[in-house]
Amino acid sequence: MSNYTAPIRDMQFVMNELADFDGVAALPGNDEVSSDLVDAILEEANKFASGVLAPLNWSGDQEGASWNEGNVKTATGWKDAYRQFAESGWTALACDPEYGGQGLPKLLSTAVMEMWKSANMAFSLCPMLTTGAIESLMLRGSDEQKNMYLPKMVSGEWTGTMNLTEPQAGSDLAAVRTKAEPQGDGTYLISGQKIFITYGDHDMTDNIIHLVLARLPDAPEGVKGISLFVVPKFMVNADGSLGARNDVHCVSIEHKLGIHASPTCVLAFGDNGGAVGTLIGEANRGLEYMFIMMNEARFAVGMEGLALSERAYQHALQYAKDRIQGTEAGVRGGPKVSIIHHADVRRMLMSMKSQTEAMRALAYVVGAATDFAHHHEDQAVRAQKQAFVDLMIPVVKGWLTENSIEVASTGVQVHGGMGFIEETGAAQHLRDARITTIYEGTTAIQANDLIGRKIARENGVTIKALLAEMREVEAQLDASDPALAAIRRSLSAGVTAVEEAVAYILATYNEDIKAASVGSVPFLKLLGIVAGGWQMARAALVAKTKLAGQGGDHGFYSAKLVTARFYADHVMAQAPGLAYAVVNGATGALELPEELF
Amino acid sequence: MSNYTAPIRDMQFVMNELADFDGVAALPGNDEVSSDLVDAILEEANKFASGVLAPLNWSGDQEGASWNEGNVKTATGWKDAYRQFAESGWTALACDPEYGGQGLPKLLSTAVMEMWKSANMAFSLCPMLTTGAIESLMLRGSDEQKNMYLPKMVSGEWTGTMNLTEPQAGSDLAAVRTKAEPQGDGTYLISGQKIFITYGDHDMTDNIIHLVLARLPDAPEGVKGISLFVVPKFMVNADGSLGARNDVHCVSIEHKLGIHASPTCVLAFGDNGGAVGTLIGEANRGLEYMFIMMNEARFAVGMEGLALSERAYQHALQYAKDRIQGTEAGVRGGPKVSIIHHADVRRMLMSMKSQTEAMRALAYVVGAATDFAHHHEDQAVRAQKQAFVDLMIPVVKGWLTENSIEVASTGVQVHGGMGFIEETGAAQHLRDARITTIYEGTTAIQANDLIGRKIARENGVTIKALLAEMREVEAQLDASDPALAAIRRSLSAGVTAVEEAVAYILATYNEDIKAASVGSVPFLKLLGIVAGGWQMARAALVAKTKLAGQGGDHGFYSAKLVTARFYADHVMAQAPGLAYAVVNGATGALELPEELF
Repeated sequence: MSNYTAPIRDMQFVMNELADFDGVAALPGNDEVSSDLVDAILEEANKFASGVLAPLNWSGDQEGASWNEGNVKTATGWKDAYRQFAESGWTALACDPEYGGQGLPKLLSTAVMEMWKSANMAFSLCPMLTTGAIESLMLRGSDEQKNMYLPKMVSGEWTGTMNLTEPQAGSDLAAVRTKAEPQGDGTYLISGQKIFITYGDHDMTDNIIHLVLARLPDAPEGVKGISLFVVPKFMVNADGSLGARNDVHCVSIEHKLGIHASPTCVLAFGDNGGAVGTLIGEANRGLEYMFIMMNEARFAVGMEGLALSERAYQHALQYAKDRIQGTEAGVRGGPKVSIIHHADVRRMLMSMKSQTEAMRALAYVVGAATDFAHHHEDQAVRAQKQAFVDLMIPVVKGWLTENSIEVASTGVQVHGGMGFIEETGAAQHLRDARITTIYEGTTAIQANDLIGRKIARENGVTIKALLAEMREVEAQLDASDPALAAIRRSLSAGVTAVEEAVAYILATYNEDIKAASVGSVPFLKLLGIVAGGWQMARAALVAKTKLAGQGGDHGFYSAKLVTARFYADHVMAQAPGLAYAVVNGATGALELPEELF
Repeated sequence: MSNYTAPIRDMQFVMNELADFDGVAALPGNDEVSSDLVDAILEEANKFASGVLAPLNWSGDQEGASWNEGNVKTATGWKDAYRQFAESGWTALACDPEYGGQGLPKLLSTAVMEMWKSANMAFSLCPMLTTGAIESLMLRGSDEQKNMYLPKMVSGEWTGTMNLTEPQAGSDLAAVRTKAEPQGDGTYLISGQKIFITYGDHDMTDNIIHLVLARLPDAPEGVKGISLFVVPKFMVNADGSLGARNDVHCVSIEHKLGIHASPTCVLAFGDNGGAVGTLIGEANRGLEYMFIMMNEARFAVGMEGLALSERAYQHALQYAKDRIQGTEAGVRGGPKVSIIHHADVRRMLMSMKSQTEAMRALAYVVGAATDFAHHHEDQAVRAQKQAFVDLMIPVVKGWLTENSIEVASTGVQVHGGMGFIEETGAAQHLRDARITTIYEGTTAIQANDLIGRKIARENGVTIKALLAEMREVEAQLDASDPALAAIRRSLSAGVTAVEEAVAYILATYNEDIKAASVGSVPFLKLLGIVAGGWQMARAALVAKTKLAGQGGDHGFYSAKLVTARFYADHVMAQAPGLAYAVVNGATGALELPEELF
């Protein structure tokens, strides 16, 4: 088991010095957003995360959610924690004020979301999915639907779910078969089975609002024939009170590697005649609506990668400081020391720390860009920021989550034999992290999106602009300073590696999509590593300036500089090898006939 | 759940074409070793592994071993499987004929060991630890001890354990506190607590023979004061029958991330007066004896990395061939295809396959070198082979196990959402693999051994000879053939990378051991990747020759060639980045004061 304390200092650093908090605060609609407000919210969120959610993380994992005759019971303490969470207003933080939300910037809600996910990822999934359902309703719901559902979802009184996957339709939603029969009264009877439904049933709230992809009787085949419906667990009367139990039931929950306390449900719609739902927006446009929300959802899962890495790092660091074992290298018969003195333990901790900080910097910068893309007064700025967000979303989702598996696994390693013992808690982070590269689109799906829609389709315009920005940062790194010179060298090689890989993708994608696709995941990792290194280089430049001034906080900035250097030497150094695989790796991957595997 | 079939064709290829089986068979003492015998043994072992052990792998994981009032109960089917295993003679395969063993070469027992570990790693740990105990007794036991224990351990009637670790003494055995009080009759009373004792108690055999590190009353501090004792669970009478219950008891078993069916015991020695044991060899030389056996034990754990990778690959491959999802890339409205058609799934499978084959080639070559080192008639050859074995043992242990975590995790990813569901069985391989980089010396300990004892201490003599051998292979790769040229290019860059890293280590180790040690784990991975690539290059050369001839088996050899190429382009391409971290990474890793973490 481990404690958690939000890394508020680094969060503030990234928000203020890298992600242009002042610019975000100056956007229309953010009149009340100030540094003081942000600091107060971060402090309060940290209290809740560390005081209420974190202590339930391990007990929830061990107990898990349980299923009994159609009803899901959450782990001990879950219901009360959720009640406090909602009462404290945390469900409403980023929601529209029209329905009771606080309308705070994405940049701020990103930092708060990181805390929930670090403290207790399994818990955080419930508000995360609810947010997704809220956004769908906000986006395309009728006024009647909005008024019926949104206030209670924003307040946290009810939760929401997203019902996409079916046994034959995992990543391929064209294969969705759930049916929706119109009843002639504006309602539909939904029937079919949905799997992998996060918090599809639970005992924390009186009602659950399911958003469900299904097909109308006359719908075309494939992705163009999928519509989106809202299906409450209990019907809602005109006065807002709960009516009859709807015909949607949890028939089982999954026995999973991790996130044991988050019930992953098989939901049966219409086993007893049909679950009553209403159509959201227009018929046959359900998948399109899902896509609009996809950036948000993918960003949120990417944040899980960051959050678990931070938690795993804190856990490993504490152990490395406490555990006494062996003597200093090269010293015989000297006193026993804590294992943080051992070079490889330090290397592991620096690897965890530097990657976590790089991920945070990149994610928050993308979060802030979302604020600019939505709210900046200048349409050109909005478009440019949106293009950057669109490019980076698959990277935030794919790279942060892939990293989190490695970082959590390193955390286990720091613990030695104790890391393999479940009571230690380090293994839970690895088990929890393992889902993040799979759900909300696997890394391969992110990578396809990245090289296809985000790069090849626009002939690399946005990524080339991004690479030019990185070159500008490179040029600012003073080669006469040892740390900055080391960072400059790796960043330079990293940007060159991305350039080579982009040139290959642009030359290949339309001619031979499979050859380009072989390199898609290595490319995603490459771009993530270099984009993270770009942010760490920016951080190093800020740190250098601060260290030269009188501003204090010498410790924080000197640590930042060392950390950025470690990242350059150990992490960014992997970039050329990844580019090599992108550019040269297609033949070896594609040549073997299936029968020779 | 998954099936397992031993990859006999690849095993035979590696044994015959890469590991010089003919040379091994010609060694003194191997008169009865023939290709026919080997094929027959591999066939029989495969039957047992796939028919008896593999079906218990998942059920054993789910049920686990259980503890009740000092007694450990193994999972359903375990006891019967063990009985069959012993009755079939598998425990005796590599043991000395003098005590009932079959004395077969290491090269052959390596292949058989791979099967046990692929089929059921948790099961395989029991015979593995028994082998370790047998070797200790063979090596330094008195005739009385040998005659009392060895025949029944070799036959599998009794099992053995190794008792090293204590709560305060994990990797640092200098801290061992367990006491041994001489009784004046040649026996000792052992008291203390040992943790992490694999199969420290179980219900599969009538007796368990514990080998225990402990201190005599007058022993010096530290590693020079540790002696090795043999302590049976039940005393053994002169006629070989069992006597009184000894004072060693299992007080609990661990709740672990993986290998659930392998009981990991806390053993209390002497809670009721003292456990009776006898000294093995001389006093205060226990750690030295452990070190002599260490190559065997580390090699065996390295084999777990290979074996789990093979199992995870077979599992993922089957799923990728069966699972229908999506259409061919670039084809709209085409038929649904199995996911092996998707470029990234292929990349993942080739990554698993190529690394597994590289690991097998390297491990078997090291296994064969052990045979030569022990049995070759020419002392110079023995010495040269032993130096190669000593150099490569930490690589086999460290690199194969680190890889297995990545390969098993990739196997989960191939399964998509199903990979996260425990019933699928893919997650078990990842959970099981996660211990392999920790026990029998963490990767950092292997890496320290590698750069210190195996490289710096002899000023790089052996590794330089190895690099020269690799350069010879490089020179044989015909640059006019596309596949061989690709392999040549990566191997060349890889060998250069190792050379640079070795030069750094030799220049730094004695001056600044911490700076050298920061690079130790990256260097171990680097050397593993390049040594594996060297073997794959050798395999490619053999394949090319065979494909040009009339020998048939075209499919196998063309697959080998493609696989070697994939390895070069995707895996060996990482080598320069690792060398960069070795050579440049010390400052960033060591500079941060502890309080700034």
